[in-house]
Amino acid sequence: MKNILGREIPDFIEGYGKVTHYNGYLANKMGTIKKDFNFKSINPYDNKLYTDISKLMDVLPLKDGMTLSFHHHLRNGDYVLNFVMKEIAQRGYKNITIVASSIFPCHKPIVEYIEKGVITQIYAGYISGPVAQAISEGKLQKPAIMHTHGGRARLMETGEVKVDIAFVAAPTSDEYGNINGVEGKSACGALGYAHSDVENAHLVVAITDNLVSFPNPIIEINQTLIDYVLVVEAIGDPKGIVSGTTQITKNPIGLKVADLTAKFIEQSGYLKDGVSFQTGAGGISLAVAAEVKNLMKNKNIVGSFAAGGITGYIVDMYKEGLFKALFDVQCFDLEAIKSAKENPNHIKMSASMYANCNNKGAVVNKLDIVILGATEIDTAFNVNVTTGSDGIIMGGSGGHSDTAAGSKLCIIVSQLVNARISVLKEKITTITTPGETVDVLVTERGIAINPLREDLIEKFKNSNLPIRTIEELKEIAEKMTGKEKPIEFEEKIVAIVQYRDGSVVDVVKQIKK
Amino acid sequence: MKNILGREIPDFIEGYGKVTHYNGYLANKMGTIKKDFNFKSINPYDNKLYTDISKLMDVLPLKDGMTLSFHHHLRNGDYVLNFVMKEIAQRGYKNITIVASSIFPCHKPIVEYIEKGVITQIYAGYISGPVAQAISEGKLQKPAIMHTHGGRARLMETGEVKVDIAFVAAPTSDEYGNINGVEGKSACGALGYAHSDVENAHLVVAITDNLVSFPNPIIEINQTLIDYVLVVEAIGDPKGIVSGTTQITKNPIGLKVADLTAKFIEQSGYLKDGVSFQTGAGGISLAVAAEVKNLMKNKNIVGSFAAGGITGYIVDMYKEGLFKALFDVQCFDLEAIKSAKENPNHIKMSASMYANCNNKGAVVNKLDIVILGATEIDTAFNVNVTTGSDGIIMGGSGGHSDTAAGSKLCIIVSQLVNARISVLKEKITTITTPGETVDVLVTERGIAINPLREDLIEKFKNSNLPIRTIEELKEIAEKMTGKEKPIEFEEKIVAIVQYRDGSVVDVVKQIKK
Repeated sequence: MKNILGREIPDFIEGYGKVTHYNGYLANKMGTIKKDFNFKSINPYDNKLYTDISKLMDVLPLKDGMTLSFHHHLRNGDYVLNFVMKEIAQRGYKNITIVASSIFPCHKPIVEYIEKGVITQIYAGYISGPVAQAISEGKLQKPAIMHTHGGRARLMETGEVKVDIAFVAAPTSDEYGNINGVEGKSACGALGYAHSDVENAHLVVAITDNLVSFPNPIIEINQTLIDYVLVVEAIGDPKGIVSGTTQITKNPIGLKVADLTAKFIEQSGYLKDGVSFQTGAGGISLAVAAEVKNLMKNKNIVGSFAAGGITGYIVDMYKEGLFKALFDVQCFDLEAIKSAKENPNHIKMSASMYANCNNKGAVVNKLDIVILGATEIDTAFNVNVTTGSDGIIMGGSGGHSDTAAGSKLCIIVSQLVNARISVLKEKITTITTPGETVDVLVTERGIAINPLREDLIEKFKNSNLPIRTIEELKEIAEKMTGKEKPIEFEEKIVAIVQYRDGSVVDVVKQIKK
Repeated sequence: MKNILGREIPDFIEGYGKVTHYNGYLANKMGTIKKDFNFKSINPYDNKLYTDISKLMDVLPLKDGMTLSFHHHLRNGDYVLNFVMKEIAQRGYKNITIVASSIFPCHKPIVEYIEKGVITQIYAGYISGPVAQAISEGKLQKPAIMHTHGGRARLMETGEVKVDIAFVAAPTSDEYGNINGVEGKSACGALGYAHSDVENAHLVVAITDNLVSFPNPIIEINQTLIDYVLVVEAIGDPKGIVSGTTQITKNPIGLKVADLTAKFIEQSGYLKDGVSFQTGAGGISLAVAAEVKNLMKNKNIVGSFAAGGITGYIVDMYKEGLFKALFDVQCFDLEAIKSAKENPNHIKMSASMYANCNNKGAVVNKLDIVILGATEIDTAFNVNVTTGSDGIIMGGSGGHSDTAAGSKLCIIVSQLVNARISVLKEKITTITTPGETVDVLVTERGIAINPLREDLIEKFKNSNLPIRTIEELKEIAEKMTGKEKPIEFEEKIVAIVQYRDGSVVDVVKQIKK
């Protein structure tokens, strides 16, 4: 047959197959892509920009039972989850699944939507504040699914979670959806948790309070992944976006733990040229970083990289030449945000690159040393960072299980006894991170090495450090605290603790009133 | 049941579904991902690095009928396609499909594999030299599929082409597959065409001659997309990697065409603040760029971006502040490579971001002005850049059709008559780019505006420029050349010209000997 250009083209060509004939350069408006997702291709004359959330909602394919995703880079200053859900609740939609990388106290307004059945399911890597309380009280219809940071990327990449619409807070964007997090009044730094959303959701809305002219030259997430750009007055409260937690502990017990940890690291053999390092933003962890910094400087050790959520302390180590590069999934403070914008070797990575166990190699696989916290730990080195000692959800794995699994030396730092409560339990309330991935527990009363690490036990056989068995530490603690009363729960499962590979490592039950 | 940590977990949980129980942190070694691809997840203790191609070939899942992909950033200096195919041919595999973004004269060695049935199918956006000749002679078993640069990304993203193994030439890589093209002895600049391969192939091998320690901090393609890293002595010949074509024409007729083009652009109304611009690396196109540069400087015009394959001429315009940013899919010369490494606003983009019509908005959609060449053009403004006037394949669309479709003003620049051959034909040998996407033809004998652009015809009604109808230009040319003898072909279809949306715009037939 003749096509519209007058060319003779067969309908079928041997070795090629059935022919789709040319039918005008704008004829093919629909594409199929990864996981058979249908999406609307954007043509040269299409507009993505909206300045009125209500008008945007009118064009979105909203429906009961839909799955919506959000990222948590605006932390406890986030406005986006709240104002999007308010619009959707006002329109009467029900039975919605929220896939938020983390949920903070600022998200209190959504408790009402949980109670009313607007939101009936939640996926998150970390939940604290009123939403966590509501879940522990059994108010959410379906059990919350608490995954790891890497697990969230895996859930989306494998299609186990199919997101209908991703709402992406974007501190800076142009009208076509080229986004970064390092500029604008709501700058938050790296946007690592948003990558899975934009790459795997059916439809993606970028929401910005800093619209710049095309092209925004600093691009962390690009235009090919964004369907709509919504401009609003403010996406967050700068005071809540930057964490107030990035201070070295002043507590003398905490400093003692940090000192023992640094000495353990020094003697472990892992602190040498090329070493890679990760620590959280907690007070003891930062104190460890400060001591490791001095050790590296004194011994002229140059490491390869520091990774994870990045703080000003880690940026300082990079600036002093102690690390060749930083792998940054999220920024904890202003220094980190500034560095993420300015330092070429401050590499912004996706949560998948950071910690997904089902890709072709996450950064955690290359980690030598990670310093992590614990709410509770048992004698098998299983760690709880999901629930408090009252049994109520107050956190979650985040990158805890991911880095523990990937690193060569995973050290848990904690006060052994705090406010008459021991971190070491006969049975911990919830298992977040399996003990087989935890190597060492450092407390002010001594250091316990996991018996699985025979090499380390051998290495520290003659150490001057207070090496104890974990059972010995538990006994010491029990003498100080007495026998603790077990927490009582209802039968209802209110949360699933998913390991990074999607298997279930534990469940959380409803608290007794 | 009890899981291996001793926790009581039901096999099924209401609202969650069937439970996959925790079975050890390394238990889940297989992931499923986009398009149900199975791939091997990389664990902390897995090694990706090979230094012997033969040992790597032993572990690759090679088979008859497989599909292998390659990118063309090493241009006419590429060694990779040749040495990989040599290994595979030696092992006796047959019936292989090659998905190479472009094929150059340096790929002459694969003609032998085409003749022997080792390679029976080829996808490419551009083919020149001995392989093109062999295809035109009917030596390839199945018709070659000639797509656009954006079309190649689309073919892979939609799964229409499923690549078994992608071999990615990597001028710099670490042992985990963090890659860039801007460093190393075989530096080639941006790696835009390789992104579709690494994102969509079942298995990806990076091949480098510059292995650096982990982490390589300048990352264009990251470790999560790479299965193996192969280190070899040399991936290419630097003399062939950088094109020798990026020189402004010295031909007075070419300069006349460029001068008319610049004047047309000036009067068109498109040359104003925020203008975006693309031109190729041909001599006339570069002369147009030089004139546009002067116009912008004289009129204090600041553009938004220049895009495409980037040359030193375009880098100069950026450095002089005439563009806010560069969108770079490939670098044509050393100046461009240097800029791609050093300038933060020199943005490296994937071919999909550049030109795919089935994503959420390609850069070509934002193009105001593009300057393109032609081998032949007809009075409906259909353009051939696929075959020469002898009917033999000598090129292909590359970004031609993509930028023509996306841009607001697509100008074809060409000598009207060259060596007694007119560019304007009654019937062109092959249609590469449909005339409805072409706005203007500029020749030394006059300028023809596509009648579809009534706005432009109105605008230039009283212009002092030599505006002609395209029929008038054709008559002028015919008086100089006489009637040309039509080329004769065999019946066999040797190549399919695929439009950017996957529809077939034309076919190429076997030449008569």
